[in-house]
This record gives sequence, structure tokens and C-alpha cells, in this order.
Amino acid sequence: MPRADQSYKYQIQIFLINMTPQPVSLCAGDELHPDRTFVNIKDVDSSYAGKNVWIRARLHTSRGKGKTCFVVFRQQYHTIQGLAVVDDKNITKQVVKFISGVSKESIIDVHAKVQNVPKPVESCTQKDVELLIEEFLVMSLAEPQLPLQIEDAARPVTEDDENNLNIKVNQDTRLDNRVLDLRTPANQAIFRLEAGVCKLFRDVLTEKGFVEIHTPKIISAASEGGANVFTVSYFKGFAYLAQSPQLYKQMAIAADFEKVFTVGAVFRAEDSNTHRHLTEFVGLDLEMSFKYHYHEVMNTIGQLFTEIFKGLQTSYQSEIEIINQQYKVEPFKFLDPPLKLEFPQAVKLLREAGVEMGDEDDLSTPSEKLLGKIIKAKYDTDFYMLDKYPLAVRPFYTMPDPNNPKVSNSYDMFMRGEEIISGAQRIHVPELLIERAKHHGVDIEKIKSYIDAFRYGCPPHAGGGIGMERVVMLYLGLDNIRKTSLFPRDPKRVTP
Amino acid sequence: MPRADQSYKYQIQIFLINMTPQPVSLCAGDELHPDRTFVNIKDVDSSYAGKNVWIRARLHTSRGKGKTCFVVFRQQYHTIQGLAVVDDKNITKQVVKFISGVSKESIIDVHAKVQNVPKPVESCTQKDVELLIEEFLVMSLAEPQLPLQIEDAARPVTEDDENNLNIKVNQDTRLDNRVLDLRTPANQAIFRLEAGVCKLFRDVLTEKGFVEIHTPKIISAASEGGANVFTVSYFKGFAYLAQSPQLYKQMAIAADFEKVFTVGAVFRAEDSNTHRHLTEFVGLDLEMSFKYHYHEVMNTIGQLFTEIFKGLQTSYQSEIEIINQQYKVEPFKFLDPPLKLEFPQAVKLLREAGVEMGDEDDLSTPSEKLLGKIIKAKYDTDFYMLDKYPLAVRPFYTMPDPNNPKVSNSYDMFMRGEEIISGAQRIHVPELLIERAKHHGVDIEKIKSYIDAFRYGCPPHAGGGIGMERVVMLYLGLDNIRKTSLFPRDPKRVTP
Repeated sequence: MPRADQSYKYQIQIFLINMTPQPVSLCAGDELHPDRTFVNIKDVDSSYAGKNVWIRARLHTSRGKGKTCFVVFRQQYHTIQGLAVVDDKNITKQVVKFISGVSKESIIDVHAKVQNVPKPVESCTQKDVELLIEEFLVMSLAEPQLPLQIEDAARPVTEDDENNLNIKVNQDTRLDNRVLDLRTPANQAIFRLEAGVCKLFRDVLTEKGFVEIHTPKIISAASEGGANVFTVSYFKGFAYLAQSPQLYKQMAIAADFEKVFTVGAVFRAEDSNTHRHLTEFVGLDLEMSFKYHYHEVMNTIGQLFTEIFKGLQTSYQSEIEIINQQYKVEPFKFLDPPLKLEFPQAVKLLREAGVEMGDEDDLSTPSEKLLGKIIKAKYDTDFYMLDKYPLAVRPFYTMPDPNNPKVSNSYDMFMRGEEIISGAQRIHVPELLIERAKHHGVDIEKIKSYIDAFRYGCPPHAGGGIGMERVVMLYLGLDNIRKTSLFPRDPKRVTP
Repeated sequence: MPRADQSYKYQIQIFLINMTPQPVSLCAGDELHPDRTFVNIKDVDSSYAGKNVWIRARLHTSRGKGKTCFVVFRQQYHTIQGLAVVDDKNITKQVVKFISGVSKESIIDVHAKVQNVPKPVESCTQKDVELLIEEFLVMSLAEPQLPLQIEDAARPVTEDDENNLNIKVNQDTRLDNRVLDLRTPANQAIFRLEAGVCKLFRDVLTEKGFVEIHTPKIISAASEGGANVFTVSYFKGFAYLAQSPQLYKQMAIAADFEKVFTVGAVFRAEDSNTHRHLTEFVGLDLEMSFKYHYHEVMNTIGQLFTEIFKGLQTSYQSEIEIINQQYKVEPFKFLDPPLKLEFPQAVKLLREAGVEMGDEDDLSTPSEKLLGKIIKAKYDTDFYMLDKYPLAVRPFYTMPDPNNPKVSNSYDMFMRGEEIISGAQRIHVPELLIERAKHHGVDIEKIKSYIDAFRYGCPPHAGGGIGMERVVMLYLGLDNIRKTSLFPRDPKRVTP
């Protein structure tokens, strides 16, 4: 086995000449690779003391000190201390010097003896053991100058820094160098939790008999009105990017799929540079036919959120804790079953708090925030559902309340005072849909195919669309939606 | 309870005046709906004989005959016969006449007594019982003229039709009226099976430790070269629609996610009007770092397919049977573990069959088809993996074989002789990537961010992208990819 100093040169040579990450002799055939079983850093504890292990990890930091070099190895959010000591056998002075010089973020195969430490290693997640390095192979060499340091990007925002000495990595630097930024423990955890939200969304709905569908993103007419829509050149003509799967979900209901969900990209050409707007995000959408009352659907969505919150609590506790180490996370509170209020109750609460608003006014963003605080104080929940919005503030396809023409069969749901789903019973009767569209000044000709979808029998139905990134941001109490989008898109950013 | 003739008028009135699908008295409050438990047609068998049931279903067909009206009710792929007979109580002559006149595809709430039939009802899936109608409420009335008849759209393609009397519904008529077309039993089953493919893909990979990611569709540079890419107007500038999540999957690997998958829309501005091309389809993509050999990844993908095929066999047998009633499905054969061949073996088999080709030529589409037949005959499998493609026919980012400069570490996989996944080890070393890009005449400046992603340490990795609609089409042996896309997009179609 090549030793550290040789292996480095050897590996680099291999890369450039032989174009493969392992020595030629090791990849002549399928099964010919070294007899090494790798272990994960998170598993290496005192039970390994005295044993030899192979680990593939990033070189997180290194610090040479005479005849010794201290190294921290990292895998996602797990770190372990390594130690190379001149022993006049494998580890010569040159080897220690070489290890000290390998650039941070390089990927290393390290072979080492695990040993207990006299006092806990505070700087690592594995506190009780360290690795006495015997072999050190550079599998992928990082460039020596990193555009940002992982320690800087990973530093707790609350950390004491009276003299303002710590380097802060601003958001654009992070996003410009997203591949590095994503390596922080918090980011590793955020996107694993986000995957969990999607999995829970799908699993809960599949269990309830929903069918997953895929709706087209390229469409011939703007689905939610002409503003805020991206135009695509389509061969010799033009098309648009779907602002939601709304029409297609409803067509699936008219096509007898009964209960459907879809997870996919939605696009908004909105020139909003705020903490909570993206031009492209992931929609978790659902639509469901019901027998008698749209509350059958609203309650299903409420249960869905309860199940998602419970699932995160149960299965993603360690991710939440890791995120909490960088960003202070207020634990997310919810009630089971969820709190349900009607719009006039919200208006009353806001008026009691001094907000002036009419009965048919929509909630402003600051009012929503304030309402979230009032409800948290009063009911101790970060999630609630608000039913029966004024008809005037909802889209034309929203079903009016049969008992009150000023009110609609529609609802929003909120997390920490921000809207995360807007939903409603939809009008499934073509004549009424035309009447309401005309009332809103919508050009009937442009939505003909939408209206026609309901001409051949359609059950009553309701649904809603959830912004995935918002759910994760608000569940964790993060301050910017760009923290929960892997490669965020906003009016000023389409790279990387 | 209103009787049939009254209820019809009443319901329509309700729709138009009260804007709700149920009588006003039934929706005054949340819980105020009639005390009815609905049953599903598929569950109504002899065990229900003598009992009364409520069913909400489509009026599939009706046929009045003097004092009797025969009706077929339909839910997805289940049908049951109903019978209204003049009894001089609820069911008057007028009622029978009214029921006979309700348009097909209307949604009906029917209250009926279940009774055994003297001989099986051949035209329905529920053969042993029928419904003696007592109440008949029109919940949603279809227009009397349907653009296509469900019976025509659902007719088996193989059905004897010597005199060519049966009405055939051509593909454009189907797609123009997709909401109706999707109501056929075969389509109901196809899209449920497709949802199953996605679920199996995700579940198998999640079980193996993969993390789900979401990659942007709006990108600043064409990911797979400049041709065949859609341009989007992006505020005051331009952007493109991603032709694959390739770059972003690889960036996720460089960002320490180790194993990732993503399910989402991919876009190809290819003016191909064939049975197997779409301009927008759903990509099932995965990427995985490996320790020593890209076969670790290739074998993982092979296992993934085996698990998907097994899962479909186990959990979607009834859907497959229903599809088989309209489209003759040859059962899909596969080996466990899957058959793996090397490219030169394929060339040899083709040459033995009379095909002339050079060692470094790519396989033409007819050659792929022929090879599929040869391999089926020789190995009795509809799925196989073909490894070690000539370097010359693969994209610039494909890792060359370290032992043979003419060969690459890349593979395709096939179902019934058509490619459904193309994959490879990717070059993770910037210097080599630049060298190969230059060799292919790719402008280095345009792929700078792609190359830069590998500058800060990246493990060796491989992956692939699967076309969801192709997998379903080929698994079922269907003849056109438009049959497995809910709302297909091709150069000539962006509606509905």
C-alpha cells in the first residue's frame, strides 16, 4: 500500500494519466478492489478502541505541530480527530509535513488505529476517540484557496462575537458557491429534512388513497391569469410555464382519479425580492373530490399537516438538533386536531389588537404575522387553518358559499403567521364558472379548455397547493426561503 | 328525499342558484349532511343481496325499454347494472323516462336494493348482482353530446371487427378530449401503475440511503449542449429549461449528499414526432458516489429495476390485467440479478445476425430493437444492461476506461429493446474534464460553473436518468409514449 507522501503523488498521477480514482491494479476487473471495509465516522466510538479502520472523509481542518499533525475528518455532520505522529516507520517527518499541507475539503481515505482519548475532544462530534493515522490517501484534492471556509459558513449565528472578529459569509457568497455552502452540517440536515417533508406528504396521501400524477409545466395559456407568467419559445411559436398545476389537478378529478397529488416545479415571474418569494419552487399540490362538504377536504389537509409535523418530530429529531446548533430553532407547536378559525374570528382578533380593516378586506402580510402571534399566545399553536374567506378576495374559480354570497368556500393555512397553503372548493359547474369569470373580467375565450373540462360530469372537489420550501423554512423558523431551496431562483439569480 | 324526476330539476336549480352540489338544507353547517354511507361498486357482491346501498357513480350507459330502464353505473374500472322498474310508488313511468334521458357520464347518487341475478351480467364487472333503483339524484349533469364515447375509447384493439363497423377513436381525438379519454379502464390503470413506478423508484432508493433532491428547471446555460434547448424570457434577460438535472445531481454529490435522486420535469426542444419522444417528460434521476468501481452504481441501478419489476408484479397485477383487456400486454420478463453484457458482446450478436457495424459505432435504433429480440430469445429477459460503450459515442463528461482509451465507464439499460436509461461514471477531476471537453469542441467558458463544481474535492460518482413514461410504455408493451403521459407534450401539442 503506498504511504502518504507517495500516495498523494501517485493518486494525482493516476487521475491525470489513468483517469480513474484508484490505482490501475485495483480496477482491472469488476471485483478487484482492495479488501477494505469502510466505516462511518458516526459509528466510531469506544467500542472500536484498539481496532484498525478505513474511513473515507473530507479533510475538515489540519494543524501541523512539530512531529505531530492534528486533522479533523468530516462526513456530513460527523467529525472525528485524527493524529499523525512521526514514528520512523510509516509516518516519517515528510509524511507529517505532507499531511499538514493537503488542502482542506480534499477527500481522504485514511487507515488508522482507533484509540480512546484522555479528555473529550470538544471540537468533534466523536468526543471519546481519535484516529492514529497509519495510511493517508488523497482521493480527490481540493484547490488550496476555498471561496468560503466551511467553519465560517457553519458558525452559529448567535455565537458570542463582541468584537465582531468572526468572518461572516453573506448570502450571495454562499449561493455563488453553493456546493461548498451545502456541506455545512445545518445544510446537510435542512435538505434531509426537506426530503422528509416530501416523503411524508406522499406517504400520508397515498395511504389515504390519493394517486400521484404529473402535470405539464409547458402550457398554452397562463393558468392563473396573464401576469407573472414566464414565456417560453416553443418551436415556431410560444408557450408558458405553469404557475400551478391547478387546471390539471382539476382535470384529473374530472377524469375520475378522485384524489390526486403532485410534487413538482411551479414558476412565478414575479419581480419580488423578498425573504419568502422564489421564481421557481416546488409545489406540493393536492385535489380531492368530496361527497357533501368541502370540509371533508379541508380536514384531510389539516390531518396531512398533523401527520407531517408528527413525522418530522419522530424521524428527523437529530436533523432538527443539528440545524438548531447553527440557527436557533423555536420548537414548532401544533394541535391535534388542528385549530380551525373562521375569517370573521380572525378579523375580530385583529381589531381587538388595534388593526383597522373591513369585513371583506384580505389580510395584509403584517396582519397575518400579527395574527400568528395572537393565535400562538392564545392557543399555543404555530399551525392553524382559516376558513371562509371573503369571496371578493379569492380567484374567480372559488366556490361561493351557498348561504352567504359575500363569503366563499375557501381557506388558507398558516405556519408561524405565514401562509403556506391556499385552497378552496372549486366551481365544477360550467355555467357558474363562466358567470364568475365574467364578474372578474376574465376573458372566457382564453379559459375555454378550463371550462370545457367540467362539461361532461365532474364531482364537487376542493384542494390546495403547498410551497415546499416555505413549509421547511417556517417549520424550522429560518429567516429566508433561499435557505431551503437547494439552488434558489429569484429575479436576480439563475446560477449556479 | 326528492324523487328522480324532481331531483334532477332540483339539482340543476341548486347548481345555478345556490352554487353548491347538494340541496341547501344539507349544507347549512359542517356536519349536516344526509345520513348516507356510500359503498364502492367493486365491493357490491352477493353478500349485499337484499340490502340497500347508496353509490355515487357515473352513468355509463342507459337503455329504456317500456316500463323498465337498464343502466350501467361505473367507478373507474368497476361497473354494475342498475334497473328502474315502474312500481307505481317511487318509480313512476315519468321517472323511468327521465332516467332513460339523463346523459351518459353524468354523476349520479343512486339508492338501490341489491339483488342477485338469475344469470351473470356479462357486460359488467359485477356479474352476480344488480341494483334495483329506488332513488336517482343527478349530482353533475354531462352535456348530451360527448366528443367521444367511453365504450369506443375503451374497446380492445384486438376485438374482432371484420366489417370494420366499430368506431375507432384516433389518438388526436383522445388527446384533445383527454378528460374523457382518461376515464377508460385501461387509462385509469395505466396512471395508477405509473404512480406505482415512481413510488417504487423512491422507496427502493430511500431504503438504500439516497436523499431526494429538487433541482432547478430554469438554468442559465444549456446543460447538455446548446441544441434542443427551450429558451425562457426571464425578466429583462433570457434563461433555459433544463434538459436534465445532470449538473445539479453532480453538484449535490460534490456537496456531500453521497447518494441522491430526483423526480421531475425535463425538457427537450427536439423536433421529433415519433412514438417515443416527448418535449417534456418526467425524469427519474439518480447519482451516487462510489468507493472503488462504477459497477457499484451500475449494480445498484440494476437492483433498482429488479425491485421495481417485482413490485409491479406483486402490487399492480390487477391494473396490468385491466390494461391487458384493452391492449394485449406480453408479460414482462426479467432475470434476478439482471443480465449484464459488454458492448463488444452486443456487437458480436448483431454481426452474427447480419448487421454490419464498426467496433466503435453506436447502436442504431433498429439495431437496439433487433438486439432486444436476440437477447430475449437467447436469455429470456426483456431487461438487460449493456456496459462499456465506446468512448467516442458518449458525452464529454463520461469517464474513460483507465485500461482502454477507446472505451468508457458507461452503460445503457434496455426494456424490450428500447433504451430506458443512459448512465456512466462522470469525470470528477477538473483537469480531465477540461481535456475531454476540448476534445469534443465544447466551449470551456460556457461550462465553467460545471467544471468549478469539482475543484473543491469530489468523490468518484456515477448515475443515470430514466424516462418515466418510457419505462411504463415498455413495461406494458404499449405502442406510443403518449399513452403513458397524462397530458403529453410534443412539437405539435401543448394543449390541453
